[in-house]
Amino acid sequence: MADPTSFDTHPSRYKHWRLTTAGEIATLVMAVDDAHPHRPGYELKLNSYDLAVDIELADAIQRLRFEHPEVKCVVITADLDRVFCSGANIYMLGQSTHSFKVNFCKFTNETRLYLEDASAHSGLASLCACKGTTAGGGYELALACDEIALVDDGSSAVSFPETPLLAVLPGTGGLTRLVDKRKVRRDRADVFCTLAEGIKGKRARDWGLVDHLVSRTRWDDTIAERARALAARQTVERGPAVELPAIAPKVTADSVAYRHVSLHVDRDARTAELVVRGPAGEPVVDLTSPHTWSLHAFRELDDALLRLRFDFPEIGVVVVRTAGDPRVVVQHDELLARTKTGFAREIRLLQRRVLKRFDNTARSLYAVADRADSCFAGVLLELALGADRFYMLTDKDENIGVAISVANAGFMTTASGLTRLEARFYADPERASAVLDRGVVEPTGSAKRRKFLAEHPVGALAARKFELIPSAQAEALGLATIAADDIDFEDELRIAIEERASLSPDALTGMEASLRFVGPETLETKIFGRLSAWQNWIFTRPNSTGEHGALTLYGKPERPQFQWKRT
Amino acid sequence: MADPTSFDTHPSRYKHWRLTTAGEIATLVMAVDDAHPHRPGYELKLNSYDLAVDIELADAIQRLRFEHPEVKCVVITADLDRVFCSGANIYMLGQSTHSFKVNFCKFTNETRLYLEDASAHSGLASLCACKGTTAGGGYELALACDEIALVDDGSSAVSFPETPLLAVLPGTGGLTRLVDKRKVRRDRADVFCTLAEGIKGKRARDWGLVDHLVSRTRWDDTIAERARALAARQTVERGPAVELPAIAPKVTADSVAYRHVSLHVDRDARTAELVVRGPAGEPVVDLTSPHTWSLHAFRELDDALLRLRFDFPEIGVVVVRTAGDPRVVVQHDELLARTKTGFAREIRLLQRRVLKRFDNTARSLYAVADRADSCFAGVLLELALGADRFYMLTDKDENIGVAISVANAGFMTTASGLTRLEARFYADPERASAVLDRGVVEPTGSAKRRKFLAEHPVGALAARKFELIPSAQAEALGLATIAADDIDFEDELRIAIEERASLSPDALTGMEASLRFVGPETLETKIFGRLSAWQNWIFTRPNSTGEHGALTLYGKPERPQFQWKRT
Repeated sequence: MADPTSFDTHPSRYKHWRLTTAGEIATLVMAVDDAHPHRPGYELKLNSYDLAVDIELADAIQRLRFEHPEVKCVVITADLDRVFCSGANIYMLGQSTHSFKVNFCKFTNETRLYLEDASAHSGLASLCACKGTTAGGGYELALACDEIALVDDGSSAVSFPETPLLAVLPGTGGLTRLVDKRKVRRDRADVFCTLAEGIKGKRARDWGLVDHLVSRTRWDDTIAERARALAARQTVERGPAVELPAIAPKVTADSVAYRHVSLHVDRDARTAELVVRGPAGEPVVDLTSPHTWSLHAFRELDDALLRLRFDFPEIGVVVVRTAGDPRVVVQHDELLARTKTGFAREIRLLQRRVLKRFDNTARSLYAVADRADSCFAGVLLELALGADRFYMLTDKDENIGVAISVANAGFMTTASGLTRLEARFYADPERASAVLDRGVVEPTGSAKRRKFLAEHPVGALAARKFELIPSAQAEALGLATIAADDIDFEDELRIAIEERASLSPDALTGMEASLRFVGPETLETKIFGRLSAWQNWIFTRPNSTGEHGALTLYGKPERPQFQWKRT
Repeated sequence: MADPTSFDTHPSRYKHWRLTTAGEIATLVMAVDDAHPHRPGYELKLNSYDLAVDIELADAIQRLRFEHPEVKCVVITADLDRVFCSGANIYMLGQSTHSFKVNFCKFTNETRLYLEDASAHSGLASLCACKGTTAGGGYELALACDEIALVDDGSSAVSFPETPLLAVLPGTGGLTRLVDKRKVRRDRADVFCTLAEGIKGKRARDWGLVDHLVSRTRWDDTIAERARALAARQTVERGPAVELPAIAPKVTADSVAYRHVSLHVDRDARTAELVVRGPAGEPVVDLTSPHTWSLHAFRELDDALLRLRFDFPEIGVVVVRTAGDPRVVVQHDELLARTKTGFAREIRLLQRRVLKRFDNTARSLYAVADRADSCFAGVLLELALGADRFYMLTDKDENIGVAISVANAGFMTTASGLTRLEARFYADPERASAVLDRGVVEPTGSAKRRKFLAEHPVGALAARKFELIPSAQAEALGLATIAADDIDFEDELRIAIEERASLSPDALTGMEASLRFVGPETLETKIFGRLSAWQNWIFTRPNSTGEHGALTLYGKPERPQFQWKRT
């Protein structure tokens, strides 16, 4: 089997970052160990990064949110002399397959968006303290922070050398954040993005590329002061602190098994089955434990999605099933939403991020409810709504159905800002309301339902009327793509999967990326839809990755040779 | 020299369409002559289309707007037995270079957006009457119309066979319009887009793929009735009718020359100079003539941009210069905006479309004001604001400058809905207002200026205070990227052009597409940014255009062989 990719790590095992906290301020020092790349074949010189480095960064951000609720600002910096970060490692990119390049970029994009998510929703601001050269992906990391400080030493610059030196894009959100987040004037952004040496000093500040220009002598004091100021602005409280245990799945050549989640692949058919099981055995909801289902199952699902992307590139269709008691999932969702601790809120934010990772996974996703213990309820129903299609079996006893909870009602927004129900019923918002009225949903249900909920305290949740919407009704409501009885179901599903698996993976990726993200565009959808799509295109072009391409020849004596035709 | 592409045509010379009008209703019959493709090498069977067909369609829409102001609804139909349109010709696509494919798709996308623009802004609705198979690009054309009628004959379907049969996307706006314009439920859109045979009858209507399902016997009556109903809804008046004369440029191997516009290319340097000259000689503004500068110069510019795209693919950098009297351009803009005829409004709408075509041209665009007769005023200043950079020479006598008119103030929106000034000053809208206050701008200028304008009738325009903003001030206002005196200017510009021309065309295309379209996304930007970017990527992948790709092997006995790695 191929060497699987582990996303499980811990600060005690970091090779490339040092995480420390002191009161409200955390410091995350990039100190890339060049001898420990993700794969052999290149050295991580000058704080350049690869997947191994970014896995640790993602872990650090996650742990700050859950394990260090007292931290209000993280300072991201480095301790190399005159270098903050020189960006993604070029030799790594040059050696990688196209599918790895694309998935590497997607993961790093997600990690940077999580920094912004932590700032926007979790009271965890970020300050990028660039005491030296800040190039390419290094500057893209800075752009994802709330503020950027650059040392004013006459030489340190921020730069995007991707286009002039490598014939690719600053594709980890760089171009988009430059003009859409920092709102740098577009003609200046154009100049900046073609200047390999970058821009330093006063001009960098005047153009809005950085926020603070700080001398070496005032550096430590100013960074500390800015970090305190950012921390002081935070109003969202997290906590209590909960330590995240390791995920530690059992991995075989064709499967990854977790406590609540399992992934099995059929390499010949190029399909996989992803099963998410609802809570069972544990107390209704223990909201002091990191093992609580709402958190742990979604951390497992996140890990499974990442392994699917990196370790099983030839799997085209993923059948998503759920198992468990829908009533218990709804109870978990409702209690989680009503619990006013920061920890409960962090769990919901994590669920939201994992569901976005699901939406953004470039595989055909077919949700299937065809077993008596099927459990597309509440937050697990979001998987069916996020999937490309949802197949339901209509059984005589009406044991198979879906259930609505507060998790379907507003909080679990997609990248566009719409909920999955709103996106599904984009033509007719009334239908989304009609669906919500069928569930235990607060506060966006009907007036009648809100009254009912107000009269029933949390403790009475288990006793409350619970409604399973059977398959045929789910289809009539517009929730199921197809509901069929057992005479037709099995054949129809089998053919649908086989047909899907036979289509071109590239065309499906482009098709799904166009159909999944209905409605308004945001910084986030622009990054994944516009910027990433162009970057993917450029990665396939001879001018970057061909024999004479700039990425291929980077660091070699030959000059790249370009094919000059413009589109 | 290569066979140049002419976009100049006339209904009397159409080979593929028949345009007739009867009162408020026009009928545009697709009747593709298979023996007259754009290039030899394929036959246009079954109403399939290529660039030649689409050039005529674009011409017809334009002429309906200007020459037939009485027409309120155009019915687009065909008279083949059981076929409306089978989409873009696959053999043509299979034989085309990548850059031709991309530019063909861009032009057809623009043409379909112009149908929607005519409906939204010019009181010209469209009804697609599909009396037979409506496949691929044929259905994309239908999606661009206000309403779609499909014959209910038990066999005629609408379909997107691109993904299942060709391993490409319905990239002429198809995927985007399906979910974002018609708001078809995304899981149903997914089913539809993978069903090569398409969807017919009641299901097509229930899913929102078509608006009307009409039997053969009721066909003519129903179409006539729906066309009348659409016409009756229109409130915008066009006219008076003005016949559009031929553009008829003088074309040599390295140049295209028009009355007001010229394009010269330097093939060795891979650069071009595009010059737009302001009005001269003609009366201040003759708003009854198709030769009036505001219309004719922009029709010429449109033609030049299209020829640049198709006939000069190796030109990477376009230097955009203007020449003339800025005061006269401002006068034209102001009178045009104040003239309340439909014809005047149509001219402004055409200018807006041409400027969008400029924004959407995948070449590096450097606007340059370095001559005493430079004329970046009003609507011509939009070229500098749309360009990637704007270089200005600061001359001692302050003869070189820019001037503001009403054309910079609200009407000439870009694809995002922002004006070019709003996009430029996205960080600081006050700066856009400050710029507008320096010009003859109504009605968005300051209260003081509005008062001034109210006191000065149209006839006094020429006498009004006119302000040329000299280069140094234009730079301070944020209009010029760089203003430099003649000691530095020439070298700086020369180096900037040479450097730009040396960079990878692909990386520049992706970079410019990301930096130019700041701000909100719309159906239009989604089509060009998201859908087209994915389509371009897919066109470069072996699964579509490789030796064993589906597009390459279409119509041959071999089955395509796919590389299965998903991204």
